[in-house]
Amino acid sequence: MTVKKETLDSYRQFYHDQLMQDCIPFWMKSDLIDRVNGGYITSVDRTGRSYNNDKSVWFQGRCLWTFSALINRYGNRQECLDAAKIGKDFMEKFCTDDDGRMFFTVTVDGEPLRKRRYMYSESFYVMGMAEYGLATGDKDAIKKAEDRYELMLRLFHTPESDPFKITPKGYAKTRNDRVCAVPMVMLSCAQVLRRCDPAKADYYTKITREMANVIFSFHYKPELHCVLECVGNDGSRIDTPAGRCVNPGHSIENAWFLMNEAIYSKDKELLSKALNILNWSLECGWDETFGGILYFVDVDKRPCEQLEWDMKLWWVHNEALIATLMAYGLTKDEKYFKWFERLHVYAFGHFADKEYGDWYGYLHRDGTVSHTQKGSLWKGPFHHPRCLMNCEELLQQLARGEEIVPIL
Amino acid sequence: MTVKKETLDSYRQFYHDQLMQDCIPFWMKSDLIDRVNGGYITSVDRTGRSYNNDKSVWFQGRCLWTFSALINRYGNRQECLDAAKIGKDFMEKFCTDDDGRMFFTVTVDGEPLRKRRYMYSESFYVMGMAEYGLATGDKDAIKKAEDRYELMLRLFHTPESDPFKITPKGYAKTRNDRVCAVPMVMLSCAQVLRRCDPAKADYYTKITREMANVIFSFHYKPELHCVLECVGNDGSRIDTPAGRCVNPGHSIENAWFLMNEAIYSKDKELLSKALNILNWSLECGWDETFGGILYFVDVDKRPCEQLEWDMKLWWVHNEALIATLMAYGLTKDEKYFKWFERLHVYAFGHFADKEYGDWYGYLHRDGTVSHTQKGSLWKGPFHHPRCLMNCEELLQQLARGEEIVPIL
Repeated sequence: MTVKKETLDSYRQFYHDQLMQDCIPFWMKSDLIDRVNGGYITSVDRTGRSYNNDKSVWFQGRCLWTFSALINRYGNRQECLDAAKIGKDFMEKFCTDDDGRMFFTVTVDGEPLRKRRYMYSESFYVMGMAEYGLATGDKDAIKKAEDRYELMLRLFHTPESDPFKITPKGYAKTRNDRVCAVPMVMLSCAQVLRRCDPAKADYYTKITREMANVIFSFHYKPELHCVLECVGNDGSRIDTPAGRCVNPGHSIENAWFLMNEAIYSKDKELLSKALNILNWSLECGWDETFGGILYFVDVDKRPCEQLEWDMKLWWVHNEALIATLMAYGLTKDEKYFKWFERLHVYAFGHFADKEYGDWYGYLHRDGTVSHTQKGSLWKGPFHHPRCLMNCEELLQQLARGEEIVPIL
Repeated sequence: MTVKKETLDSYRQFYHDQLMQDCIPFWMKSDLIDRVNGGYITSVDRTGRSYNNDKSVWFQGRCLWTFSALINRYGNRQECLDAAKIGKDFMEKFCTDDDGRMFFTVTVDGEPLRKRRYMYSESFYVMGMAEYGLATGDKDAIKKAEDRYELMLRLFHTPESDPFKITPKGYAKTRNDRVCAVPMVMLSCAQVLRRCDPAKADYYTKITREMANVIFSFHYKPELHCVLECVGNDGSRIDTPAGRCVNPGHSIENAWFLMNEAIYSKDKELLSKALNILNWSLECGWDETFGGILYFVDVDKRPCEQLEWDMKLWWVHNEALIATLMAYGLTKDEKYFKWFERLHVYAFGHFADKEYGDWYGYLHRDGTVSHTQKGSLWKGPFHHPRCLMNCEELLQQLARGEEIVPIL
């Protein structure tokens, strides 16, 4: 059975309205955009007022991405351009250290607070600058995104070339592990760059293939029906809570990055593996008791260490909405649309703040709200507006009976 | 109104039985004691079976303390001596790096996994070795505890002399903060050393006074009715979630360390301040909706960042049982005994696993169990048996109508 056009149209309108009449207005009226110092303050409470002026470098890049993506999808709105520019300028001026590596947090006026070993700040810089370059035709921004991505690639291939000589976190001689998040961000950044700089599409496609291979070679475990976040350097299992940890939301996000790649490269085998990841993650992550997707699961059903393992996080559900809709579009298998609808009911029923707008970020396992704030150093206008934009686009393609095209 | 002797006796018996018939037997039958490699494995599930063989260095010292304290309080039992020796040998052999600083985690057979900047591993080494020295008359153990404490003192006074040149976590130039946990462990270690090496009592008392002064000068905030965990280097407020964070359980633990000091030094002003800390912490930490003490509270009622802020943690309630009972003993103010009874009902009603023994560690805000395991790298036989021992001792002093004497 195919889902009716009216159903698809009605969902499409809903996602559009949630984006334009709920999510974006909430953030535009909030303390997000710092018109005094530049940059973005994401730690805002339920009503949008700042409770922490420290700035997340991840979110300087992520918000820049969101405002730029809004321009790319909905046209050149001055409000979004201004908002993007304020973040871009701040990020360029204050968020990169002299050695070329980026900070993790800075003060309201751009003094460095913390610099971490990971290259996630860089990854969001790349996404933000590339999307901004596409939105504005700013070739310099594209160039900067690509240069920063080259740094990430170099760190990926030769970690010892990292100019930031931070003390290693653990003893690699004792236990040398690798985490799935790294090839994942390498993959999604390359996909964004490919779209924003089509002249270099072949170059980035070589990289996306490499990163997909890394994920499948080391983290994809058909015998366990999961993606392991952290494995030995050779992909072997580590029998600790970290080594047994499955992050269903992360895997689901990964699944749609990989589906997106399968669409781009018309690769049926890749699609089938990406769908496996989605299927396994929904299966192991869905909470049959209370609904919603668990944050962490132990692949052997041993105890999880994280205090927050059974909480329900907003972004997990954003990623699952995108992934199930994309899977439906690609397979027309109704089970995915049923998942989409189940997730839709859970997510909008539990995360949406009907009074002040936008979504809460964190629920207890039983679905009650544990944190009333709308933002933090880890939550801001990124996953939710990206989900609303992507779902609108996918629903439009579906309603028109078109083939699903890449969205990343 | 004074609490009746029969009531006190009945509680005393209950705490004794919980220690000897529930807590210690659970751990003795569990995978805690690694008779193959030595040392302690604390990550055990609900039934006591290991789900992670990695070893916490904190818990090598903490378990050594517990087994030694059992000997000191209940007599020289071979079972405890053996258990203590196994941990002491492993800790001495594998847990200190060549530079004299200790690791944070090691593998089951003692290979280093992680070494952190903090000196909490050292603090539990000091407590464990000192208590063991007292239990066995092993002067070498006392000496090692004291030498390690001198290292901690040196790190406290001249952090730049730290032989472990780990990259600083943040930019002190931008924001230079201090945390209350450091003078707290310095204080409690000095109290333990004073008891275990009475010849040096005056020396350690000078240090306990210094550390109490640090806590009162920088972290004790009468105008806010709280102890701030993290303040500027001059004690000034930092207006971020970390700077506004109150940890009621930590403050309550601090309160009884300070009460203990007030008893030792017959210092009424110190006692009164320690009682303030206890009063404020119970007031702001007690969850009027669901009962139990919240893990974190924002002093300005702004949103907390920690995902686990509203969870109920076992150790918080252990510390509160000790502190309220001690406060009752010192003041005979019935309100403290009422608090003790309220906490007793909540804690044994929610944390106790009636089927497999010992306590769960973590509850959702509403009191339902979120984690079924009995141990982890952060939970093992320390806070709970210490609480049971201390409460038994306090209840005995109270039942006999004796003056409360130091227990640390």
